[in-house]
This record gives sequence, structure tokens and C-alpha cells, in this order.
Amino acid sequence: MEETRGKAIRCKAAVCWSLEEDPVIEEIEVAPPKPWEVRIKILCTSPCHTDLTFWKLKEPPLPFPRILGHEASGIVESVGEEVKEVQEGDLVVPVCVPQCDECPDCRSDRSNICSNIQFQFAGDMVRDGTSRFTIAQTRQVVYHSMGVSSFSQYTVVDVANVVKVHPSIPPEIACLLSCGISTGVGAAWKVANVEAGSTVAIFGLGTVGLAVAEGARVRGAAKIIGVDINPDKFELGKQFGLTDFINPKELNDKPLNQVLKEMTNGGADYCFECAGIASLIKEAFLGSRTGWGLTVILGVGQGDSVSFNSFEIITGKMLTGSLLGGVKPKTDIPFFGEKYLEKELRLEGFITHELNFQDINKALDLLFQGIGLRCIIRMDG
Amino acid sequence: MEETRGKAIRCKAAVCWSLEEDPVIEEIEVAPPKPWEVRIKILCTSPCHTDLTFWKLKEPPLPFPRILGHEASGIVESVGEEVKEVQEGDLVVPVCVPQCDECPDCRSDRSNICSNIQFQFAGDMVRDGTSRFTIAQTRQVVYHSMGVSSFSQYTVVDVANVVKVHPSIPPEIACLLSCGISTGVGAAWKVANVEAGSTVAIFGLGTVGLAVAEGARVRGAAKIIGVDINPDKFELGKQFGLTDFINPKELNDKPLNQVLKEMTNGGADYCFECAGIASLIKEAFLGSRTGWGLTVILGVGQGDSVSFNSFEIITGKMLTGSLLGGVKPKTDIPFFGEKYLEKELRLEGFITHELNFQDINKALDLLFQGIGLRCIIRMDG
Repeated sequence: MEETRGKAIRCKAAVCWSLEEDPVIEEIEVAPPKPWEVRIKILCTSPCHTDLTFWKLKEPPLPFPRILGHEASGIVESVGEEVKEVQEGDLVVPVCVPQCDECPDCRSDRSNICSNIQFQFAGDMVRDGTSRFTIAQTRQVVYHSMGVSSFSQYTVVDVANVVKVHPSIPPEIACLLSCGISTGVGAAWKVANVEAGSTVAIFGLGTVGLAVAEGARVRGAAKIIGVDINPDKFELGKQFGLTDFINPKELNDKPLNQVLKEMTNGGADYCFECAGIASLIKEAFLGSRTGWGLTVILGVGQGDSVSFNSFEIITGKMLTGSLLGGVKPKTDIPFFGEKYLEKELRLEGFITHELNFQDINKALDLLFQGIGLRCIIRMDG
Repeated sequence: MEETRGKAIRCKAAVCWSLEEDPVIEEIEVAPPKPWEVRIKILCTSPCHTDLTFWKLKEPPLPFPRILGHEASGIVESVGEEVKEVQEGDLVVPVCVPQCDECPDCRSDRSNICSNIQFQFAGDMVRDGTSRFTIAQTRQVVYHSMGVSSFSQYTVVDVANVVKVHPSIPPEIACLLSCGISTGVGAAWKVANVEAGSTVAIFGLGTVGLAVAEGARVRGAAKIIGVDINPDKFELGKQFGLTDFINPKELNDKPLNQVLKEMTNGGADYCFECAGIASLIKEAFLGSRTGWGLTVILGVGQGDSVSFNSFEIITGKMLTGSLLGGVKPKTDIPFFGEKYLEKELRLEGFITHELNFQDINKALDLLFQGIGLRCIIRMDG
């Protein structure tokens, strides 16, 4: 790495030019990290639904061209002079949720929303407002995305957006831990603090939903009910602890929340909405138990709102939402990594596809079509 | 009390005949308690907004004639043969929220919604489905209300709806503890668990709202902001710890939540909606702090709904509602009574009016007009 340190690196990246066109693999230049930044050689990345959501987002309009991707693992290539936390050669995961470790939020157990360093939807580097990416040929600036931009062989992230993980963790597993899996496991483990014997319902059985199941399984939930319109998800989800299944298409007009109440003797202790669909948030809330039922919203939908009247909420139910499953990246991702190494968390089953970088658009297609769970992209392929 | 034990008692009660007409003081007969019931000689009662809400409720229609009133204190006159918990002569408060102490909810710290004995809006006694009240002259059955019916010189309640309190507590203070004050203090103390140094905003400064302030004051909140369209409430509320005040009528179109964020360096740690107005729930939620802001809904409104989109809730905020401020009556009301006797809780200021029973409609008028806080009605007057 001594060869590249302090210099721009030429490499390949999937550049997204507009709301409509598929990303195009381009030759780019990645500038060296500024004092508080880390340049990472990406080993693996996997497309996550939020990439699609922000790529296609019309309001607010986000800048193009930019490099998507925020779930990844890699090796530190070089660091800015103020960075002490990681060093060249470390196995790290970039994370979209920053953690400065100095603000009241980072110092509190209750928040994972850093108040020093803002979550970046898209644009420039957070501290100095410039980009590290240019198209090699034309020198055109390319924007960052979600503070990560991992659909590139090299990227630069703020030190607040990087987490060192145990070097024994395989890079494809570390990649999963950088977003989707940590979101689901964190929601069950940290936000809800699911306890042994409890009942859990999960709405939407994508990677995040099934990671909630995996988190609830490890915590000893007695009943883990999956809700999805794809009946294949029940078999797929059993390895992550699913014990029961509801297909909303097969209810013959019976309200989903009523079916859930009947299956849980009055309502689930914990409901997780992982699809970003307002009507499902409402069903989850109504299907949660009077007295202490907690509904955790993890999905981000566009436009739709969910409405409640005060009679529906006054009986001790709780509603909350979380970014990255309430996970404090620098504390919790290494912890989940240990739980993986101790074989407590079972994560291999989340990888249903693997592709080379040149086929990244096939991976995005799989995600659009809802086929499989995670598709690992090897960046050297 | 030996004279009356086992016999019907003739006394006066304010009987509510319809949605429109004021209650009329009638001579009624109160039957002796059945095995699981307690007959109470009411000493004090105070009208609470929920009396008005349920009196005027059109959907679902509730039966008439019935006896309103659910905030009260009294002396046990006689008990059914299965009742061991209280005995003749005890100072007690009847409570609308039942506690059986046997169901999963009563045994859990997290719920105060008994799953054995249902909350009764109006109608007959909960266990045997008959009434203990008749009009003395005509023998017409009169219905109970909220499991209490305290606008009567004598009432009968289920043992799940009665709490023994320390005999040194003055009956007018015990009366306050049976509903409104416990709701507000409980919401701050139990539901939110307000901690020293935190910021609190209270929307609606009636008795419940100011009791939230009192609870937050005792817990050491650094800033307690009251929100009300009546500017007199600021002065009134200072004795209960209010430090700041917002009059929504004086904001010149600036959103209330924005004003609140400016006053709290980004949002209140705890918001309490005590008015039952959907738009205020939304302002409270938006004005709560990213990362851990908790909004507690105590007011019950009719019809209106509040709506959220997932972007608004995904940043770690929480929303919950509670009946009786999350208070488990048999545990928490005696505890608050002790805190009063130890001069930690200051409750005298909540009594702004006193009237004799014959003037009960004047007390209801004060409540309709939002004048003062609690009006204590002496039942022997």
C-alpha cells in the first residue's frame, strides 16, 4: 500500500448517471483521504434496498453522477493524518450511520443518531464539502452516497463511518454486518430487547426481516411469525428461527391484525415492520399486545403515511423507528461479529447469490425482483 | 356501619338521564355489595374531563340513566364475603382502571391494563352483569359508569377497582390521587421515567398536564415547558415546576414544533400530550428530540387521527399512550400518597374550587368552561 499512499488511485466504479439508467462501470480516480478520512480497498459489497430507494428518490432530488452502495467490507489502504482508530491493512466495514463518539448522542446508550456528523443521503464528503471521486478521462466530479459509495474498488469515508472488525471474519460476512443484518439483529436485540419466551411478528421477510428473526431466535423468542406475500419465504426463514407464517393474500378479508392476535393469544409482544408500507405499520401496531406491545419500524417507504387515533394508542402500546436497528456501529457491529465467530449468530444463509463486479446490474435486478436475500459482489472479479 | 351492612342504602346521587340534560339529584337505593364487591361511602369527588367525554359520547352509545364520576375518596361501608383486601372503615379511593393482581398484565411491571377485569365504560357491574343502583321511587335501574360512579353518596365497586390509602391523607387529596393527579404524575414518573436534567414539554395545562409538570419537577427535570392557549396557565403552573411557556396563538405562523426545538436545543427529551388533540400529538412528536425523544399521549380525543410517515419516525423517536399514566393503582397510588405525606409531591394547589354536592352541575360547568383545576365536591354538603 506504500505505493498508493498519498496518491490518487485509478480503479473501476459503478457510476449512476440518472434516475432511470442502470449504473455504468467507469474508470475513476479516487483521491487520497483528507485528515479525518480513510481510503478503503473494497473486498465485497452487496446491494441493499436503500440503494434503490435513494437512487430512485425524486423528492428531494439527489445529485448525479454518483456512486451507490453502502453495505461492504474492505481493507484500509491509507488513512488521513488525524486518524488513529484504524490503520493500513485493517479489515473494516464502512457504515452509513456515523459515530463520532464525542457528541451527547454517541455518548448516550439511547441514541445512535450522531449529532456531530450528519447522515449523508448523497453529495460530498461531510467535513469539507468536496468529493474524492472523478471520472478518470474527463475529470468530471462524481458524488458520494450515504457516506460510503461501496460500488467502487476503492472509496473514501469519514473516520466516523468506518468500523474495524475481527480479522477472522470472512469478508462476505463482514459485508453483511455493515448494514442489513445489523439492522435486523439490532432491532430485535437492542431496540426491542426481545426476551426469552416472547412472541414476535415480522412484516416483510427480506434480509432485514429475516435478520430480525435471527436476532429474535438468538434471544430465545418462543414464537416468531413471518408475514410475507411470497410463500417461499417460510421455508427460507426457518433456518433463522421462523416458527409460523401468515400470507396476507390468503386471509379471505379477515384483517391481518386479527389473525395475528388469534395466533398470539391477544397480540404479539414485538412487531417489526420491515417493508416500509404504511398499511402494514398500522396492522403491526393493531396486532401488537395491549399493555406493552412494541412496534418497531425499520422500513422506509415513500409518501404514504400511517394514522392512529388516540383510543388506539392509549392502552400502553409503543411505536418507534430506528436507523440501522438502533445499532451503534463501532460498538455493536464488532459485538455481532463476535457472536458470529462464536457460532451464535448464523449468517451464511443470508448469502443466496454471488457475482463479480462487472455483473453488478444483475445484482441490482435480483433486488428489484425480490429474488433471494443478499448477493455478494466480489470487487476483484 | 353495622346498621346498614347487608341492606340497601337510600341516598342521593346525581343521575344522568341523557346526552343533553344536566344530571339531576335523585333519591336512589344502593344494593349491598356482592361477594367480590365493596360498598363505599363517598367523602369527596371531583369531576374529571373523561366524565364529560363519556357523558357526551355518541359512538358507541352508552346506556342511560347512569351515575357519572370516577375521581373520589371514601370510607368502606361494607364488603362482600370474598373481599379480604379492605375492610369497613378503611379510607379508600375507587379507581376506574382495575387491578386483579393475578393476570399476566397485573403481574408484569410493564402493563397496567388488567386482562382479567375489563375497563368498564358504562353499564352493569363487571362480574355479574347487574346494577346496584335503582331510583328509590320507581325501582328503575340506574347504570354504573367507569366502574366507579362516584357522583353518589354511596357506590359499589369491584374489589379490583378499589385502593386502600394511608388514613392520614386528607380525603380531598386522596380524591385527587384516584385519577387525574396520578395520571399526570405517573406519566412523568413511570411511563417516561423522566430523569434529572432533562427537558419536558407538556401540551395542554389542565389538571393532568400540570400533574405531569409536578411529576417532572419532583424527578428533577431542568426545563418544563407548558403549552396552552390560556396565558394564565403559566403563572398557575409555576408552583408545579413550569419554567417556560408557549402560547400557540402567539407564534405568527411559526410551527409549534420548531419553536419547541429552538427552546430545547434540538427537541424535548419528553413530550406529553394532555389535550386529546391530534394536531398537538403531531407537534409533540415532531418537537421531540431525535435519537430518544419520547412522546406520551394521555389525552383521549374523539374522531381525529394523527398521521406519520416513516421518515418522521425512523430516527429513534418513540410514541406511546397510557391509561391512568401507566399507574398500577394498588401499587402506585399508595406510593404517591406517601410522597404527598413526605411533602415531596405538592398537591394542594390542584384544588381551585370546592362545592357542596347539591351544586354538582356548577362543578361540571367549571370543567366545561376550563375554569380552574380540580373542584372538590363534599358529598355530605
